[in-house]
Amino acid sequence: MTSSGARGFEVVRAGHLELLVTDLAASKRFYADILGFVVTEEDSGHVYLRGLEDRQHHCLLLTKAASPGVGHIAFKVSSEAGLEPIEGLVKARGGFARWVGEGEEKGQGRALIVEDHLGFPVEFYEKMEPVDWMLQRYDRYRGAKVMRLDHFNILLPDAAVGYDWYVNTLGFGPTEITETEGPSPALWAAWLRRKHTCHDIALTTGKGPRVHHAGFTVADRGSIMDCADLLASTGYLGTMERGPGRHGVSNAFFLYIRDPEGNRIELYTGDYLSADPDWAPIKWKLNDPQRQTFWGAPTPASWFNDAMLVRSPRTGRFMDVSPPKIQDRPDYLLSAH
Amino acid sequence: MTSSGARGFEVVRAGHLELLVTDLAASKRFYADILGFVVTEEDSGHVYLRGLEDRQHHCLLLTKAASPGVGHIAFKVSSEAGLEPIEGLVKARGGFARWVGEGEEKGQGRALIVEDHLGFPVEFYEKMEPVDWMLQRYDRYRGAKVMRLDHFNILLPDAAVGYDWYVNTLGFGPTEITETEGPSPALWAAWLRRKHTCHDIALTTGKGPRVHHAGFTVADRGSIMDCADLLASTGYLGTMERGPGRHGVSNAFFLYIRDPEGNRIELYTGDYLSADPDWAPIKWKLNDPQRQTFWGAPTPASWFNDAMLVRSPRTGRFMDVSPPKIQDRPDYLLSAH
Amino acid sequence: MTSSGARGFEVVRAGHLELLVTDLAASKRFYADILGFVVTEEDSGHVYLRGLEDRQHHCLLLTKAASPGVGHIAFKVSSEAGLEPIEGLVKARGGFARWVGEGEEKGQGRALIVEDHLGFPVEFYEKMEPVDWMLQRYDRYRGAKVMRLDHFNILLPDAAVGYDWYVNTLGFGPTEITETEGPSPALWAAWLRRKHTCHDIALTTGKGPRVHHAGFTVADRGSIMDCADLLASTGYLGTMERGPGRHGVSNAFFLYIRDPEGNRIELYTGDYLSADPDWAPIKWKLNDPQRQTFWGAPTPASWFNDAMLVRSPRTGRFMDVSPPKIQDRPDYLLSAH
Amino acid sequence: MTSSGARGFEVVRAGHLELLVTDLAASKRFYADILGFVVTEEDSGHVYLRGLEDRQHHCLLLTKAASPGVGHIAFKVSSEAGLEPIEGLVKARGGFARWVGEGEEKGQGRALIVEDHLGFPVEFYEKMEPVDWMLQRYDRYRGAKVMRLDHFNILLPDAAVGYDWYVNTLGFGPTEITETEGPSPALWAAWLRRKHTCHDIALTTGKGPRVHHAGFTVADRGSIMDCADLLASTGYLGTMERGPGRHGVSNAFFLYIRDPEGNRIELYTGDYLSADPDWAPIKWKLNDPQRQTFWGAPTPASWFNDAMLVRSPRTGRFMDVSPPKIQDRPDYLLSAH
Repeated sequence: MTSSGARGFEVVRAGHLELLVTDLAASKRFYADILGFVVTEEDSGHVYLRGLEDRQHHCLLLTKAASPGVGHIAFKVSSEAGLEPIEGLVKARGGFARWVGEGEEKGQGRALIVEDHLGFPVEFYEKMEPVDWMLQRYDRYRGAKVMRLDHFNILLPDAAVGYDWYVNTLGFGPTEITETEGPSPALWAAWLRRKHTCHDIALTTGKGPRVHHAGFTVADRGSIMDCADLLASTGYLGTMERGPGRHGVSNAFFLYIRDPEGNRIELYTGDYLSADPDWAPIKWKLNDPQRQTFWGAPTPASWFNDAMLVRSPRTGRFMDVSPPKIQDRPDYLLSAH
Repeated sequence: MTSSGARGFEVVRAGHLELLVTDLAASKRFYADILGFVVTEEDSGHVYLRGLEDRQHHCLLLTKAASPGVGHIAFKVSSEAGLEPIEGLVKARGGFARWVGEGEEKGQGRALIVEDHLGFPVEFYEKMEPVDWMLQRYDRYRGAKVMRLDHFNILLPDAAVGYDWYVNTLGFGPTEITETEGPSPALWAAWLRRKHTCHDIALTTGKGPRVHHAGFTVADRGSIMDCADLLASTGYLGTMERGPGRHGVSNAFFLYIRDPEGNRIELYTGDYLSADPDWAPIKWKLNDPQRQTFWGAPTPASWFNDAMLVRSPRTGRFMDVSPPKIQDRPDYLLSAH
Repeated sequence: MTSSGARGFEVVRAGHLELLVTDLAASKRFYADILGFVVTEEDSGHVYLRGLEDRQHHCLLLTKAASPGVGHIAFKVSSEAGLEPIEGLVKARGGFARWVGEGEEKGQGRALIVEDHLGFPVEFYEKMEPVDWMLQRYDRYRGAKVMRLDHFNILLPDAAVGYDWYVNTLGFGPTEITETEGPSPALWAAWLRRKHTCHDIALTTGKGPRVHHAGFTVADRGSIMDCADLLASTGYLGTMERGPGRHGVSNAFFLYIRDPEGNRIELYTGDYLSADPDWAPIKWKLNDPQRQTFWGAPTPASWFNDAMLVRSPRTGRFMDVSPPKIQDRPDYLLSAH
Repeated sequence: MTSSGARGFEVVRAGHLELLVTDLAASKRFYADILGFVVTEEDSGHVYLRGLEDRQHHCLLLTKAASPGVGHIAFKVSSEAGLEPIEGLVKARGGFARWVGEGEEKGQGRALIVEDHLGFPVEFYEKMEPVDWMLQRYDRYRGAKVMRLDHFNILLPDAAVGYDWYVNTLGFGPTEITETEGPSPALWAAWLRRKHTCHDIALTTGKGPRVHHAGFTVADRGSIMDCADLLASTGYLGTMERGPGRHGVSNAFFLYIRDPEGNRIELYTGDYLSADPDWAPIKWKLNDPQRQTFWGAPTPASWFNDAMLVRSPRTGRFMDVSPPKIQDRPDYLLSAH
């Protein structure tokens, strides 16, 4: 990967996420009171949330809608001037792009929202309003003590097409890769980063376009286990879908949660520094039993079957999905289809 | 419960366990090098192990045998003079009892081994050789950093018969109880203690006499997760049967392990003080989904199906087992029979 | 030690503590909102608090008074009938004893309060009203997540006199002992237990009668560090007197706190099981630098100089104090006198 | 800060450190056996060590020498071609620069070592031999479980001169800043980063050129406390100089260690992501008692007085040091001078 600005723009990191929810109050309660997100601002249709480590307006936007799903994922870029070249690249591939005025999304400067040729609603922005840092306001710590957004995990029928876009055009670097078995292995999934962590986005083979989950960073394993205890004590037992456990890929400690609307997030901690441009991607085989869960615990079928639909910024409707071009789960789980 | 010595003896606590193993070297490697037990002594047929907190010769005895299983479980009593009345009580119920000479089991004083009327091989002893305390020898900490033996969990066809023996005759106190559903609930399982923790022995309805597991105390949740990482790194992935997770009963954080022979132990931490004689048992219903795993994760069928056979001190052969008198698992797991 | 009831009574454990405070609201805020004690009940002059693990009415009673200090320490006994023989033993040594009617201290049955011949106000009681268990109400966890009372640490001019009373008369067992240096070492401090932990009471040489601190159990090291972060974020920076750190004696991880009135408590976790009647006391030398802080960090002078005065149940005034009969701190701290 | 390559080179991160030690075997024992560094390679004069997370040959080089101190600090750059412009910039300021051949330092490609105009020996390199990743080899975890190098902290008489060099010439970005008190505050210290953490280098006012410490990342607070327990158990009690504790600046949890030669390292965990180019530096005042230790514990005088001398790559002798131009510690510590 190159971090130079040769392409006229620089993506900085996964920036924020818009989740669609039918019951705004219930979702606010879940994310703020239980998981511990900080409420920056709210209005009748939106709740803007951030993590304890965040210094900008929001990393999670809850928007009232008729059905749950994803409004958009968003990347922060290093300068507003970098948005124009992105518009050009999106349109050159037949994608849709629309400018978002300053403040149209609260706290955010002028931005570009696109429906890329992969079918995903992606917002690019530089400016976001500074807010108080809660990192040393330990009196505000509660629940999972969510620190910040870490990454998106998206499903698409052909991961290789997504890889080309994110790596060769948007300048992401691959940290880990999963390939199918056999003599001519195909790319099955890729973990790609701009910031110096394991990833900002993971591309996984599956029925898509869909967003599998958004990962949020917590401080340590204890935070995740405390959160599990809390969910089990507050009527949210059914929200714990998978984990706690250790990933093979990323080495992170995790808990997957289905929020009250069924949207999926991951609590995530303990990956690694990936600052080096000469980082050689770590390779995994699809059927390696320790790839997904280092401790070998089986992944529930719902984790493979379910994901969040994405709303088209062009039509305002959820995108139609297409089946994966290759198998979308390890052999040992094919029967769970 | 009464802790008075009115019955002529006082059981102090779960003392140690004899596990039968076919490959002594492999088991020593697993328990000492991986899990972190301290080797006190060994000979061609035995390895005597203890925890970091132990001040006596052993809490786990590995004995070479033709098949895996349990040689005996053992309780420490408060005085050697208390062994005689126990002999009387066992024989009065038709059990078998035999005296074990000082040093017959290394490090141990004169003891009584019985086959109680429930069919279990149980040793009672007072004296055991003092050894160096490793609690502040942090250079000896490794693996799961096992501290000490905590409890036995045994399966018997009729838990109520076991309850009468342990509570009314041996003076154990119940801390928690599980009952079957319905208008006339039956005792399904009981957690009984002499020392001031959740339990020294748990009696569970099931095909028996068998020992389901022995629980060993570790310092904290981190020790259990570190152990899971270690097992997953050293070729012992398949030994993790259930967990890590939080129990409903006992509130402890746990990991169940099947050792290389298939014998089952539990790593266990975070129960509570139960010193009060007026402790009212906490009651659970068999079908409560949070009873076994507070976080709701399903218990694998093997956990219900498998347990360790017990070797008769009378015949030297494994005891025959009988089916449970009532259902031996929650309704939602009956299909997993 | 013997746990038999030969003496006609059995002390069960350290039961609760009455702290005198001048500003009841401020102390309630500190103990409940910051440290995480659960409020069971309150009136104009008292706040009754308990830990998350407690199943009885209170383990900490805050009482409005003209000056901070200790109203009484209290031990739970195994039966109300055991209170009479204690009254006799106290009076036989010239102590004062008074009966406390049921409900006189809220939630408590008939009790005996004494001023023992050591000059300390000590209450003995059996019955205390059962309350909801918060151990699995993780939504109630906050601050230091205090679990329960663990022990008292008291200062008296002659530790040996106290040792005789607690061990030979009240039936406590010594788990650890500190002796002075030299050819004829004197008892300097003793850690004594009834419940199966390191101690219910520690006797330390010093100006007395005074209570040095009450120790409260928390679940793990993380709880103590989270509490330090919280105190540092909420204007209570100055309350942290010593630690976090590891003790040599007890092996516990600790933080000493001076509450807003100057009363001292300890957050405490990670000692050991001491159930065995044949436990041989662990011996330390006064000048061992790892005795107090296993990591060697110096103990501040205030920790040696300051302690809580005790209110006489006979006069209602604070007891006069006498100087220690031997040196009251290690040689390396004598200059800090 | 800009991460563009406009200046013809890009520093990637703090790369490695050469410590001079008189007893190579003793230092290897300390760093490898106790702290848990992985030995990559060694010869009669050197031991090359890395962290569990490292994928390149070494992050710590121990070199046998007549006196302890620092041989060089080193930064990884994004391409070998970027070394030439750095040479030019160093020489333009009157510094010394020398090329280091491939393999001259084992595992390292062609490099540039300089004595910059601040008087520090700094190596720049791109290539370093890939080695096995131990991140998921939990069987190799021991001691502090050191993950990787995080940062250098250097002392120089005039921090502002260093700031100009690192920020305006080498392209580092400031994350936090400490200023002196008063109406015209001077820069007292700065935390500067290239990788997306709190810092790669901190510049502090003090007698210099000296290196105050190198910070190494560990996984969590537990790793630091486990290390403290281990040091206290293995005869290294005196190596713990300050902590464990929480920093105000960086928010990291820390322990400062003086190795057996007196060289100082920091175990460090829990800072934050600093990926955003529009990051506004966080400002602290020199006398803020929570700046250095968020929990308020005093910093020992040795921490301010002592630091490591640096060996000139030009002369092979330690650099002479000059006094700081402004006060080198908070007012409340001036008396400890």
